[in-house]
Formats: sequence, C-alpha cells, structure tokens
Amino acid sequence: MKIACVLGQGFEDSEFRIPYDRLREAGYQVDVIGVKAGEELKGYKGKEKVKADKSIDQVKAADYDALLIPGGQSPDHLRVDKRMVDFVKQFDQSGKLIAAVCHGPQLLMAAHLVKGRTLTAWQTIQDDLQQMGATVKDQPVVKDRNWITSRKPEDLDQFSSAIVDELERGDAGIRDTGRPSQPGAHP
Amino acid sequence: MKIACVLGQGFEDSEFRIPYDRLREAGYQVDVIGVKAGEELKGYKGKEKVKADKSIDQVKAADYDALLIPGGQSPDHLRVDKRMVDFVKQFDQSGKLIAAVCHGPQLLMAAHLVKGRTLTAWQTIQDDLQQMGATVKDQPVVKDRNWITSRKPEDLDQFSSAIVDELERGDAGIRDTGRPSQPGAHP
Repeated sequence: MKIACVLGQGFEDSEFRIPYDRLREAGYQVDVIGVKAGEELKGYKGKEKVKADKSIDQVKAADYDALLIPGGQSPDHLRVDKRMVDFVKQFDQSGKLIAAVCHGPQLLMAAHLVKGRTLTAWQTIQDDLQQMGATVKDQPVVKDRNWITSRKPEDLDQFSSAIVDELERGDAGIRDTGRPSQPGAHP
Repeated sequence: MKIACVLGQGFEDSEFRIPYDRLREAGYQVDVIGVKAGEELKGYKGKEKVKADKSIDQVKAADYDALLIPGGQSPDHLRVDKRMVDFVKQFDQSGKLIAAVCHGPQLLMAAHLVKGRTLTAWQTIQDDLQQMGATVKDQPVVKDRNWITSRKPEDLDQFSSAIVDELERGDAGIRDTGRPSQPGAHP
C-alpha cells in the first residue's frame, strides 16, 4: 500500500517525522508530495529537512491508498494551490483514508469538506471548524468514516497507531472488495 | 489618539512596520501589545524585531481609539489566548476602528465576529471567512462599519492610508460626540 504525504515549507517537524517513520516501519511506501519535485522542505523548528519525492502534477489520488497531512505552517501554504486542494478532494470522494493532524485540517476546510463531519485539530482550528458547521471533539484521536484526525505533537503516538490500525484493517478486507472506488466504504 | 497593535511571534514584517510607521508619522501613539510585556517579537522574514510595550494584562480597549492587527503567523498564535480574543471583542463592541491585514482576520474569526460582516484577508483566509458566513471582497481595502481590512503586503500603502483617513475623520467629528461608548457609531 502506498501513502501520499502532502508537505510544504514550515511543517511541524515531528508531525511529519513520527507518522512517516511509523508508516514506513509498518511496511508502507510513503511518498512526500510537494508543490515542486525535489524541493527541499524544512520544518519550522529546524529539526527536519526532506525533499519532495514527487510534485503534485505527477500524482493522482488513484495512485495511493491513503493521504497524510502533517501540520505547522505547511497546510496553509499548500492550500493556496488549487491542485493540492483538488488532490485532497479526490481522496475523500473515493472514500480513502485521510489522516490530518494539528493545522492539517486547514486543507480539509479549503476542500469544503468539513461541514457535517466530526473531527479534531489544533485548538485555534477547532474553533474555525465549528464555525464552518463541523462537530469538533477535543480528544487525541477522532475517527469519522474515512478520516483520522489529531490535535498536536503530543497526540502523535496515538495518531500514528490509529493510521496503521486502519490501514491494516483496510488491507485485510475492504480493499479486496473494491474500496478505492466506493465513496464512504471505508469504515 | 492611541492605537493598540496586537503582535505575536512570526508576524509578517512589513505588515507591522509599514502601518506602524505611517500611524506614528501621522502623530498617533502606537502601543505594541504582546502576551508578555518586554518580550522580543520577531517577524518571520527576519527583518523586524520589536519589544512588546505592554502585556495584554495591562491594557483594556477603553484605553485606545483603534486596534491594528498585522498578519503572518502572529494572529494564529495570539488567538490561542482568550485575553487577546476578548480584547478584540471589546473594540468591536464599542464600535472602535479595527484594522486587520492578511491573516489578521483570524483574530476576528476567533472572536466570532465575522458572520454577516464584509471584509477581505489573505487568500486562504478569504475562503475560511466565506464558510463562516462573511461576505468577502478580493480587493486591496474593504471598509465595513468600523472595520478596515486588506489582503497582503502589496496592499499596505492603501491599507495605511485608509486607517489614517478614518482616524482623521473620527478625530474631527465622531469622537467629540462620544464615539468610544457608542457601538456602531463609527462610520
């Protein structure tokens, strides 16, 4: 299974590193998708640097089984780009797993997907989400259909475990029954 | 007349510097209000450093004639703090001028003031505002009752002029008729 991780400048260092490493340790390929292929992306805490494996022009959601959206300043930079927003929409339309942490849900907001959904986020984003008609829970991990969301770096262990658990469940069953093309089929 | 400028780490350098200098040149006192008095605040582009003149605990909206909210990462940091959000609410309740640029309207969002209002902001924030029930105009300066809003550094000359013009109008007339205590009295 392949995971797309959308990343821009100023990501929160651990919100990329921890789930990225956990997913790779669990045997998944994780592609870092940036605005430009090969661009060096830096975490705003100065601890992490990573090159984008592919540009947004080179990929489509159909190539991947799940989407990971780390937080920090990255999601607000990425959502300037309509291609990034459309990429997120495609994952949701096909019912594929979307995992977003901290400011990550700003991309879900930009894709106009949050109204009527249940999720969590960084505390300031929680309030934005409520004003857009989402149901917000202030807890480490919130699952709603194909979404897994978390609030902050302290939640990353639980966030990463929830993603791996969900992928393993998907791998064991739903994927074999045609999950990628069935909206809402992801439990 | 005294202006409060709320500022946190990672402000957009020019969005502080240009209106700050213009207001001082026009003869206004501008106090930089931070979470802590004396804290050194840095612009994210590394061009500006400024010490907070006062902490949010030392001030109330009644002490000031207008509020300036520069953008960058500063507004999202400030809105974590309920005292900052309450300070913004007090300005609006008393009908005093609020001038916000770029990500500055994130503080207006956090104060739950945007529904039904007309404003502009940084392009990603424009979309958030629309989803919260605001009317958004994509133009350099938008005036709505006591609010003046702009989108980005390129708008700063027009933004600064609009603030000075508004303060001069207020100084000439409305203020003498008791504007600070009359909600909505600002034209």
